Formats: sequence, C-alpha cells, structure tokens
Amino acid sequence: MIVEVVAVGTELLLGQVVNSNAATIGARLAEAGLDAHFQQTVGDNLERMVSAIRLAIERSDAVIITGGIGPTQDDITREAICAATGRAMLHSDEYADRLRRRWEELGRVLPISNLRQADYPEGAEMLENPKGTAPGLALEHDGTWLFAVPGVPQEMIHLLDVEIIPRLRSSAGLDRVVRSRIIRSWGLPESKVGEMLDDLFQSGTNPSIAFLASAGEIKVRITAAGAAGPEVDELIAPVESVVRERLGSAVFGADEQTIETVLHDLLRTRSWTIGTAESATAGLVAARLTSLPGASDVFRGGIVAYATDLKRDLLDVSAAEVVTEAAAIEMALGARTRLGCDVAVAVTGSAGPEPQEQPPGTMIMAVATPEGVMARTFRLPGDRERVRTYAATAALHLTRLAVAGDWWT
Amino acid sequence: MIVEVVAVGTELLLGQVVNSNAATIGARLAEAGLDAHFQQTVGDNLERMVSAIRLAIERSDAVIITGGIGPTQDDITREAICAATGRAMLHSDEYADRLRRRWEELGRVLPISNLRQADYPEGAEMLENPKGTAPGLALEHDGTWLFAVPGVPQEMIHLLDVEIIPRLRSSAGLDRVVRSRIIRSWGLPESKVGEMLDDLFQSGTNPSIAFLASAGEIKVRITAAGAAGPEVDELIAPVESVVRERLGSAVFGADEQTIETVLHDLLRTRSWTIGTAESATAGLVAARLTSLPGASDVFRGGIVAYATDLKRDLLDVSAAEVVTEAAAIEMALGARTRLGCDVAVAVTGSAGPEPQEQPPGTMIMAVATPEGVMARTFRLPGDRERVRTYAATAALHLTRLAVAGDWWT
Repeated sequence: MIVEVVAVGTELLLGQVVNSNAATIGARLAEAGLDAHFQQTVGDNLERMVSAIRLAIERSDAVIITGGIGPTQDDITREAICAATGRAMLHSDEYADRLRRRWEELGRVLPISNLRQADYPEGAEMLENPKGTAPGLALEHDGTWLFAVPGVPQEMIHLLDVEIIPRLRSSAGLDRVVRSRIIRSWGLPESKVGEMLDDLFQSGTNPSIAFLASAGEIKVRITAAGAAGPEVDELIAPVESVVRERLGSAVFGADEQTIETVLHDLLRTRSWTIGTAESATAGLVAARLTSLPGASDVFRGGIVAYATDLKRDLLDVSAAEVVTEAAAIEMALGARTRLGCDVAVAVTGSAGPEPQEQPPGTMIMAVATPEGVMARTFRLPGDRERVRTYAATAALHLTRLAVAGDWWT
Repeated sequence: MIVEVVAVGTELLLGQVVNSNAATIGARLAEAGLDAHFQQTVGDNLERMVSAIRLAIERSDAVIITGGIGPTQDDITREAICAATGRAMLHSDEYADRLRRRWEELGRVLPISNLRQADYPEGAEMLENPKGTAPGLALEHDGTWLFAVPGVPQEMIHLLDVEIIPRLRSSAGLDRVVRSRIIRSWGLPESKVGEMLDDLFQSGTNPSIAFLASAGEIKVRITAAGAAGPEVDELIAPVESVVRERLGSAVFGADEQTIETVLHDLLRTRSWTIGTAESATAGLVAARLTSLPGASDVFRGGIVAYATDLKRDLLDVSAAEVVTEAAAIEMALGARTRLGCDVAVAVTGSAGPEPQEQPPGTMIMAVATPEGVMARTFRLPGDRERVRTYAATAALHLTRLAVAGDWWT
C-alpha cells in the first residue's frame, strides 16, 4: 500500500513553517509497514491543490492531505477535494450542532465562518477530532483512500494514529507487524552507549538496534518484524535484557514512560511528597513535575528565587556566592522546610548568555530526601533555552536516583 | 519566475530527517522575490526521481534538486537529470584532479567511488562547493533552469546564496522583492479576526493577507511585492495601519517580537519588577518570564503554591475556595508583598483531566500592579498540557495589558 502526503499551506512554501508533519507521518507509515514514494507541498491555491491531489490519486493507493481545513477563507482543502474528485459539497447539520454546543460549553458563540467545518465532500466520513474543532475527513474514491487532517501537529497525529493508519493496515490486509521497543537512558553519552552495545548493533538484523539522542536522553530502539502475536515480543525480550543489564541505572524506563511518570511512581511507592527551589530554571522543574494528571498526590509546591535577596528570605540561603553547591544544598534544605515536603530539588546556575558568578552553562543541582542531601555541578553546552531545558531534565534524573536510594557519585 | 524544490532522499520519506532544507530555500526564494507553487520529495529511486524532475520542469521556470549528489551508490541525482533531460553523462578530468588534490591535502587517498562526483550531465556547469566535496550543478534545459545541490544544509545554503539565487534573479530581470510583515494578536478568535479583515482578504492581491493561528495567537501576514527599496514597505504600511486599528489592543507586536519581549520592554519602560504566584500552571509563567537574557532586570521570583495549605502559608490566601477569582486576586496581592515586586501575575485553575472545584479547563488569572488588581476566568479547550500552555500565554497577555494601563473588561 503506497501512501502519499500532500501538505497544504503557503506558509510551508514560504519557509515560515517547517513541514515536520511530513516527517512525522513518514515515520509512522514506515513503522506500520506502509510505503511512501512521494510527498508534495502546495500553497493555498485551489487550482494547484486540485492538480496535486489528482496526481497523488493517480499514482498512490492512499493520500493524506494535511492543512487547509480550519475556519478561515484560505482553508480550502474541502473545496479542493470536491473539485479533484468531482463531488458535491454537503453540509452536516448534526456536526454544525456539535460545533455550536462545543463553543457554548466554552461560554462563547460559534462564529458563522466556523460553520464551514461542518461541510464535507459527498461520500466522505467525518473523523472525530477531540483535540480541535475541525473534523478530519475520510473518503474512498475510485479505489483510492483520501484523508484530510488539520495541520496542527497534535490534532494530525491523533487522527493518524487512531483513524488513518488502522484503516490503511486493515485495507492492505497487513498481518506482519514491525514493533519497536525503546529503552530510555540518561547520564551516559551517546558514543559511550554506542560502544557498550556495538556487538548488538553490528550483529543485529532482526531485532536490529538504533540509537537516538534527544535533549540529553539516549534512547536505544530495538526493532523486530514477525507475525502479529507474541512472536515479535519474544524476539525483542532477550535483547532488551542485555541492553538493560549493560546500561545499568542509566536506564530509567521504556517506550512511553518518561522521567516524569517514573519519578511520580517512585515517589508514590515511597509515600513521599516533593517540592522545588529554582533559580536559573525558574519554574521549569516545577512545571514538569506537574505535567501529569494527579500531580497533587506528590507535588506540594515550589519557590522560584531569582533575585538573591529572595534566596535568603524565602529559602534561608546564607552562602555568600549563590551559584555554588553549598547554596544549592541550602536551597534544597530550605525548600523541604518551607514547603513541608519530603523531597526537595534545587537548581541554581548561570544560564547565559551573560555569566553569573560562573561561566554560562554552569548549572548546579541539589536533592534533599529524608535519607540525605547531595549536590552536583554540570557544565552544559548550548544557548540559554537549551541550558535551562537540559538542566531541568538533569534535575529530574538526579531526583529519580536519589529517591530510588541510588545516590550518584 | 516560479521555482520548484525537489528534495531527494528516502530518509525524508521515512521521516528520519525533517526536510528543513525546503523551508530554508522557500524563505530565501520569497525574500529574493522568486515565487514557489509546489515542492516535491522523492526517494532514492531513479524512475521516480525522473518523473518528479520532469513534472517540475514542465510546470516551473527553475528547479532546485537537493540531495543525491554524494559519493555513495544511492546518490543518483546526476543520473536522474541525464535521464529526465535525455543528456549524456560526461566526466571532468579536471574536476577529478581537483578532488584528488583535495583529498591529498587532507592526507588521504581519494576513494574510487568519489570519482563519480566528477561526472556531470552534458551541458551542465559545475558549481564550486567550498564547504564539501560534491560540486553543485547548473543546467539550462529548454528554457528551464535545473540546479542540483547537496542535501547538507550548510553546503546547500552556500550554493543557494552565492550561485543560484543571483542567477535566477538576473535571469528574471528582477529588481522586484517580496516582503512579509507579520502582525501578532491575542485575545480574538481566528474566525473573528478573519471576519474583521475579510474585505482586506478578499480584495488583497498586492499586498495580500493571510491568517496563521498558533497556540492561541493569531498572526496576520501582509505580503507585498515590488521594487527593492522603500516601495514594498510603502505598500505594506497602510494595510498594517488598518489591521492594527481594527484589531486594537489585541495586537501586541510584529515580526520577531514575542509576548515575552514585549512585556519585558513594557516593564523596563515603567521601571517595574514582576513576580508570579502559580497553582495550575506551576512555574510555566515564571519560566517564560525568564526565557530571555537579562530577565533579572525585571523578574524577581515566584511562588508555586500547588497544595492549598501553601496558598495560605506562602501567599496569605483566605478564600475558602481556591479556584475562584477572589483567590486569584489574593494570590497576586500576596505575591506582590512576599516577593517585593511591583507587578504580580497569579494563575489558579483546574487543568484536568480531573475537575478541581471547577470543570477541567477553567483557568483563573489575576494581575496586580501599583495601579490596581483585576481577575478574569477562562474556559480553555484541550488536554492538560494545552490548557496549561494556553493559560500561561493568556496570563502573560493580561499582564501586558495591565502594565500598559489598558485593563481588560
């Protein structure tokens, strides 16, 4: 089954937006065992959209159109599908009612122009889009599948995973599956992970392994192909065991687990609450600790002490220099007391571009638990945003190790 | 002059690499006054590459092919150009000698396979590539320009800027440029902005306008084409005035300005410092206020009071219910006192998925300044992450209005 992506949007041609949707879709199609030969990008122009859609219908078995289904006048994907397939545009009163109710629930009145989102080409099915207001569309035309999805990545991904890929796999009669397991680690450099697993990388065909680095985390992806059912999992399991054994406590989770979910689970297991004391990261650690539903079970609060006098007033820091391990430890201990939490994580540092006591990129963390307190200094590369993001991630990982009783050295 | 990008590489179709080259080229073409109607992506497959190149030659005045001119066996762009244009492949002994010398200078022997980089389609000119070993190619075929450049971004950009764009502009006799101005607004729904500016949208050809929505912000892009120099700006200015006048205080900036830069500038102008009191957003507002270099000029600190008892202890909240405008106002006033700042912004709410006093998506903000205090309640759609992100953005915008003395109603 050959699938073609047609991305719609003048902003893509003008380079104001990078077409990351095409890559996201490509990766997911490949994982699902679906092929791709071409991708197209076209501006918000009816005639050209029609020619792109017709070309895709001619040479591919399925076409996924991204973008152009919003409420404004330049959103004309619905019109282009009608013109390319010679179908009439119909209007769903039922969907219009749903749109109205949805806006009412938000305490607002549906603007007239949004009613266009209840239009659909004859024969098309509307696909539920719980992440936005524009429904997706699915249409079988002369044996070719046509889908339209919003350009907003999270809405597009939802429709792709829940609606489009299952239909295409079933329509292609695919029973062979390709499955990947991702083992997630933090604390070892990518090159070191590569060396530790080189024999698996060299010998691996099924399963094969690959390394992916992102934001300080190193992922090892184990991919196997086989009949649906337990077979694929049985191919992956022994390789996963070897990877976990070699990487040790650097491994913090697998697949959809994140440092946040793992840390919450650990805290719940120990019945400990947590709080934060932040300077350079200024709320990033607290925001990540509360990104999960039910965060209030474990998270109590945080203090962002950016100005030095607030470090003294709100966290009882007495150290003369505030970008030091001594200050970080005082911040963590102060937060435990002031916030009434079992565990406190503190971050101070110099995020850049101007140095603050220390060179830019110097980030110092401390974690205090009922079992002890420890600090660690990092020198992180990159600009201010990158330094702050990496530091927040590092702080969460050090906290995970401390809560697990596996203090770093 | 209409220019089409054909990106070559199976890794693009598989989503292993995001096609940022297409965006880079698109932006530079637009800046140079060159038009683009389509972009294509195709895998490393001769037959499909030939069909993509032929299609581009048919409908465009110039074609830029990225990728597929490296030394390995799957680099077949040169072959595809020959096949698409019916030209013979020639070999440049002179370029082969240059390649040999270049490798010798690096103390290495030229691998045989790299000699393919001295091949070229009959009639093509080789373009010097100082950033790599594969030369670019330029070929005029039946009145259409064909260029081939490496996929490596820095090599591609060099050839684009130094060789390709100057040729295309000169060949098009261009002293014409295209320029865009982006007017950024917050607080009006996209459909409402569309209605308010519908006459400009309908009548606009030069300048034309377009709408872009992202994360609660609505951008109006005004694009004009004209002679280089002040002419284009003079076309844009009157339309910009109308847009600004109609959208009023919803407009917060233009082009590269963000709500963070605008708010920092406003605070500096008034010599006011700022602090935060956050519950549901738990540090997101503080993190965004400190995302810019020099944040310590205006930002003092923040209190993340997630647990109710901390709202009382750290922010002096007395309201019985904490997801209320009364509580938000107390949080803002408490933060002003405890943090010693002129302006305080507070956020409380129910981020979901579980309700907390109020239905999920209910987010309440208050801003206190030396001139007064005011609260506002939002019902935001989407999941927890989206609700929190939108709420943080909303809080920054309400703060902008309050600091500007333009209190919302």
